[in-house]
Amino acid sequence: MIKFDCDYLEGCHPNILKMLEKTNFEQTEGYGCDKYCEKAKKLILSACGFAGKRGKNVPDVHFLVGGTQTNTTVISAILRPHQGVVSAVTGHVNVHETGAIESTGHKVLALPSSDGKLTAEQVEKYVKSCVNDCNYEHIVQPGMVYISFPTENGTVYSKRELSELRKVCLKYKLPLFIDGARLGYGIKASGNDLTLPDIAALCDVFYIGGTKNGALFGEAVVITNNAFKKDFRNIIKQRGGMLAKGRLLGIQFMTLFSDDLYFRLAEHAVKTAAKIKNALKNKGIEFLFDSPTNQIFPVFPDEIYEKLSKKFSFAFWENVDEKRTAVRICTSWATKESDVAELIKAFSSN
Amino acid sequence: MIKFDCDYLEGCHPNILKMLEKTNFEQTEGYGCDKYCEKAKKLILSACGFAGKRGKNVPDVHFLVGGTQTNTTVISAILRPHQGVVSAVTGHVNVHETGAIESTGHKVLALPSSDGKLTAEQVEKYVKSCVNDCNYEHIVQPGMVYISFPTENGTVYSKRELSELRKVCLKYKLPLFIDGARLGYGIKASGNDLTLPDIAALCDVFYIGGTKNGALFGEAVVITNNAFKKDFRNIIKQRGGMLAKGRLLGIQFMTLFSDDLYFRLAEHAVKTAAKIKNALKNKGIEFLFDSPTNQIFPVFPDEIYEKLSKKFSFAFWENVDEKRTAVRICTSWATKESDVAELIKAFSSN
Amino acid sequence: MIKFDCDYLEGCHPNILKMLEKTNFEQTEGYGCDKYCEKAKKLILSACGFAGKRGKNVPDVHFLVGGTQTNTTVISAILRPHQGVVSAVTGHVNVHETGAIESTGHKVLALPSSDGKLTAEQVEKYVKSCVNDCNYEHIVQPGMVYISFPTENGTVYSKRELSELRKVCLKYKLPLFIDGARLGYGIKASGNDLTLPDIAALCDVFYIGGTKNGALFGEAVVITNNAFKKDFRNIIKQRGGMLAKGRLLGIQFMTLFSDDLYFRLAEHAVKTAAKIKNALKNKGIEFLFDSPTNQIFPVFPDEIYEKLSKKFSFAFWENVDEKRTAVRICTSWATKESDVAELIKAFSSN
Amino acid sequence: MIKFDCDYLEGCHPNILKMLEKTNFEQTEGYGCDKYCEKAKKLILSACGFAGKRGKNVPDVHFLVGGTQTNTTVISAILRPHQGVVSAVTGHVNVHETGAIESTGHKVLALPSSDGKLTAEQVEKYVKSCVNDCNYEHIVQPGMVYISFPTENGTVYSKRELSELRKVCLKYKLPLFIDGARLGYGIKASGNDLTLPDIAALCDVFYIGGTKNGALFGEAVVITNNAFKKDFRNIIKQRGGMLAKGRLLGIQFMTLFSDDLYFRLAEHAVKTAAKIKNALKNKGIEFLFDSPTNQIFPVFPDEIYEKLSKKFSFAFWENVDEKRTAVRICTSWATKESDVAELIKAFSSN
Repeated sequence: MIKFDCDYLEGCHPNILKMLEKTNFEQTEGYGCDKYCEKAKKLILSACGFAGKRGKNVPDVHFLVGGTQTNTTVISAILRPHQGVVSAVTGHVNVHETGAIESTGHKVLALPSSDGKLTAEQVEKYVKSCVNDCNYEHIVQPGMVYISFPTENGTVYSKRELSELRKVCLKYKLPLFIDGARLGYGIKASGNDLTLPDIAALCDVFYIGGTKNGALFGEAVVITNNAFKKDFRNIIKQRGGMLAKGRLLGIQFMTLFSDDLYFRLAEHAVKTAAKIKNALKNKGIEFLFDSPTNQIFPVFPDEIYEKLSKKFSFAFWENVDEKRTAVRICTSWATKESDVAELIKAFSSN
Repeated sequence: MIKFDCDYLEGCHPNILKMLEKTNFEQTEGYGCDKYCEKAKKLILSACGFAGKRGKNVPDVHFLVGGTQTNTTVISAILRPHQGVVSAVTGHVNVHETGAIESTGHKVLALPSSDGKLTAEQVEKYVKSCVNDCNYEHIVQPGMVYISFPTENGTVYSKRELSELRKVCLKYKLPLFIDGARLGYGIKASGNDLTLPDIAALCDVFYIGGTKNGALFGEAVVITNNAFKKDFRNIIKQRGGMLAKGRLLGIQFMTLFSDDLYFRLAEHAVKTAAKIKNALKNKGIEFLFDSPTNQIFPVFPDEIYEKLSKKFSFAFWENVDEKRTAVRICTSWATKESDVAELIKAFSSN
Repeated sequence: MIKFDCDYLEGCHPNILKMLEKTNFEQTEGYGCDKYCEKAKKLILSACGFAGKRGKNVPDVHFLVGGTQTNTTVISAILRPHQGVVSAVTGHVNVHETGAIESTGHKVLALPSSDGKLTAEQVEKYVKSCVNDCNYEHIVQPGMVYISFPTENGTVYSKRELSELRKVCLKYKLPLFIDGARLGYGIKASGNDLTLPDIAALCDVFYIGGTKNGALFGEAVVITNNAFKKDFRNIIKQRGGMLAKGRLLGIQFMTLFSDDLYFRLAEHAVKTAAKIKNALKNKGIEFLFDSPTNQIFPVFPDEIYEKLSKKFSFAFWENVDEKRTAVRICTSWATKESDVAELIKAFSSN
Repeated sequence: MIKFDCDYLEGCHPNILKMLEKTNFEQTEGYGCDKYCEKAKKLILSACGFAGKRGKNVPDVHFLVGGTQTNTTVISAILRPHQGVVSAVTGHVNVHETGAIESTGHKVLALPSSDGKLTAEQVEKYVKSCVNDCNYEHIVQPGMVYISFPTENGTVYSKRELSELRKVCLKYKLPLFIDGARLGYGIKASGNDLTLPDIAALCDVFYIGGTKNGALFGEAVVITNNAFKKDFRNIIKQRGGMLAKGRLLGIQFMTLFSDDLYFRLAEHAVKTAAKIKNALKNKGIEFLFDSPTNQIFPVFPDEIYEKLSKKFSFAFWENVDEKRTAVRICTSWATKESDVAELIKAFSSN
């Protein structure tokens, strides 16, 4: 069985294992205060456009273990008790974290979305309605905005879209948090016009996903807004996200942000996904979302789906109608060209 | 200005003030362990069909101060950390409690509803989809069902509807909690076929609202399911709902459940609401919901709304279209016949 | 049985019942936005030294139902997730609220105390040790200080003591919150040199207890620090503390703060307690704490305790040794002189 | 600098890295549903005395990333809202997790301890006092007991001590949870008479620490009480503890529980610690606690401490008096014999 279910099927890029082996018997400080974390932070800041900069306007970088943990830690660190986080109804925090946000006391304020994105207009309309509600004190007030880049549907915000959303956030004093679990795949997406420094400039805090982009595990949180820097490490610890051997995260991100590895891996995934997408499109397959990233959502006639399923596995998405099934096909940094070719061949032979 | 905004505009039925005065200098135990609370509990149990019964199958009765507090206390006492409470999207716990449920760590699982009610069918479909979700562990699992009787839209469940909902709840082991903030008004609604003993028999826990039905304040929680009785008072205390001078609640409910006062007050409100409703209907006014209780939701042409607003106040509900506004008109135990007549007259003179 | 167990044994001062009756059929806004709440706030602000003042430096006043609810609401509104509240180990929030503070996510940082008070010195030492701990990120950081005035042991802070504590709080940017459940009894205590304006000036937020000082129920929160004013009503609502018929609280506090009633009631209690104390002292009875307020803590030889218990009830405090028992004797605004005389007589006849 | 600060200074046992490398490009299911996790669970169950057993009385095994996360997940999964967890005042959950337990709504009920252990007697006395308290509903009720084996002071419970504690827990229906962050080091401690099957039999849930015993990271939770098995994975996910590439944990524990590696590594640490301890003892150094495990707590005269600190680092523990400092010396699976020899030599040359 060749798996295209998700982007965390394999281990990690071999360079990481090599570096873990090389450093294995060094003794380092615990909890992320080691030299590898320091080095990794510098590389990340440099990639974010802060090379050589110093002072309080340089972002803080923190390493956490996984995505749910990261989202929960960031959101609970920012909100006051009566506030909620605005999210697309499809947002990971709303649907796939077993209520982790609510477990910290906050409602996810889910807005409708057909493609996984929020629009500046819809956020402004919603926030206005909350602020002006005659029941202001009886409803959860929006305290921040959460988006994913790319989204859970594989789509990306354009620079214009993100800038407009940011403008609304600033107008209503709502911190903007970008979930970058698949950040690399978004930045390398065909047609994307947002750079990593753009992302850093257009939000208050975001994270760079490692787990799905070449690391064994790990996410790097970048806090650009000074207001949210203080004692963030305490909150990481409280939420169970502070790794004793923090260097494991430092070593991984140091490796990924050396020689542009992170983005080269992302590019590979995006390209192989595009290859599959084009092959399917050429044969008339439709897609649920217009995704230029490593996740694509073809709608297969059931007989094709069944046939392919003998050799390949995908993530089931939904029954579109009585005769067709939508699935998610995921490529990753680890996807083999030969597996892609085999999939295309199997499909084309229908 | 004559107010029809809500059903908590006045103080309380005079009998209650009299009893407070009469007992004022008695010394009683604190925290609801006094003789008035005992007496009130007996009267309530009797009204629920447990007159003279003893033993573990007799419900526990507790008195709390307000509705949000009661909902939060009951729901947080029942759910495990990863569970949420199923509610109509219009449910009070979902929209008008500033995220009180979420503040205790639990998601409100809001299902669509056009009239404020949940159907057995929709709950079953939803629960099934959660239980069978391939992401079972990544989504909030339903842990109980919350409904309001009557609903926030003034509608009531029929005995058949409630029985079917209950059946689904039992099938999936989901405790059913009925928010009875306006319970009296539901039971006395025209066409209602549910008695108080029916309500008690068809759920695991419910509350009898005092605040909106003749009391100064106070809600009586009735726990019929033994599984949720243990240490409930500790949780009341923790959630800030245990009144030091608990007797104030006992005295009020003792008074309300003497001589059928509670239901006589409710009947008065329902009848005056029906009088207004009929007068409006006869002149062609439409209603948002088909409500037989003390809350009615007429859709006024804007010029009529403006004119009436000079002398009467209502709760704004929504702009139906560019020319019409829906409002909520609320009667209560305290509504004066003369005010009703004046409203009808003012309207009819249009 | 004549009860001296606590100060919430009776109803309320008759003036309050009269005013409730007088206003009973008026229609007012809900949730504390009525004219009685407005009037009560003005009277309280005036008593706090803000008569006629306007602008942002005038405190906000809010009315809540009970003490545990008030403590929880204030503390959870101020702390960030990783912070705790410093309290004497005997503090109400630490021992008698069923973990209400913890239920909102925060640790109570309990410091030892022999008389219920915290000293400036001990707070400074503790806070310093936390801030300088090499495990700074692994321990709960103090985020505010909670004290009771008077304390749970009936003792009061002197103006010097409170000023020094406040200085330490300011030095370490720790908001100071004063639980004034029995505030009147403290201010009227023999030897006390703190006025209500002093209290208001020496903390960031405090509350004036009504429940134990003549009201049916109710506590008035006074927020003097602008940083904690925003959206406090939302948090009251979320914590279940916003009374629908808010006017009940307004009417009570308006009455209590008219004609100095609140303090006259307090004075009565303090004087009757002193009378009992002196009578016991003259016969050689020792006391657990040197309390000048309405709570006194005599240590009775067991045979005396048993004899008195036939006619009087007290709150059991502790078994001091095998032959002696300490109890709490509580007087209140409602204590009858004749009951006091009877107690003294019964005791003296031993 | 040779570090003896803690037992998470190095990476992991080389066998683990080898296995990670070997399996790196395999595609496996996410979230701990892979074959390596299955294999690791079997090996752990076998070590716990369940080799070849099947059915509902076989424990559930789960893998989490770190200790704070594990403690929080287990404790919050078991307690009801008004309950707290009994712990020694020195317990990790009480002092070094930034209030993680409180962040889930529960108080840590800290009991005094001079050596890190709780006694059956003290727990019974405390629990009895809570259950019988006349303020039962106003205090946090104990809902479970937490102990560490070995403790934070390096001490271990004897089989008799643990059995007695367990008996008290059963008597009062209090689940017993054993934090085994350093479990191997306890089991291999000189004089210890508890086996892994004993541990499993004498509690309701415990965990086997990997992070400090040869793994890169990871803890294995073993749930022996059926009552706590249901939906535990949902709670792991909610608390941010479910690793996407769960196999990383499976591979590590599979390796550690093959060929008795876990215990061989532990034995090495315990032996090297004993070597240091004996060398210091022979020269008259006193110890804070009588620890037979990999953590020892010598009290150094300050001049010796300073001299050693030039070449070696320890964890500062406390200033015992004006002339002496207590430190923690930690060995681990990775401690080199040569470093131990060098430390002893440096010390002995004083």
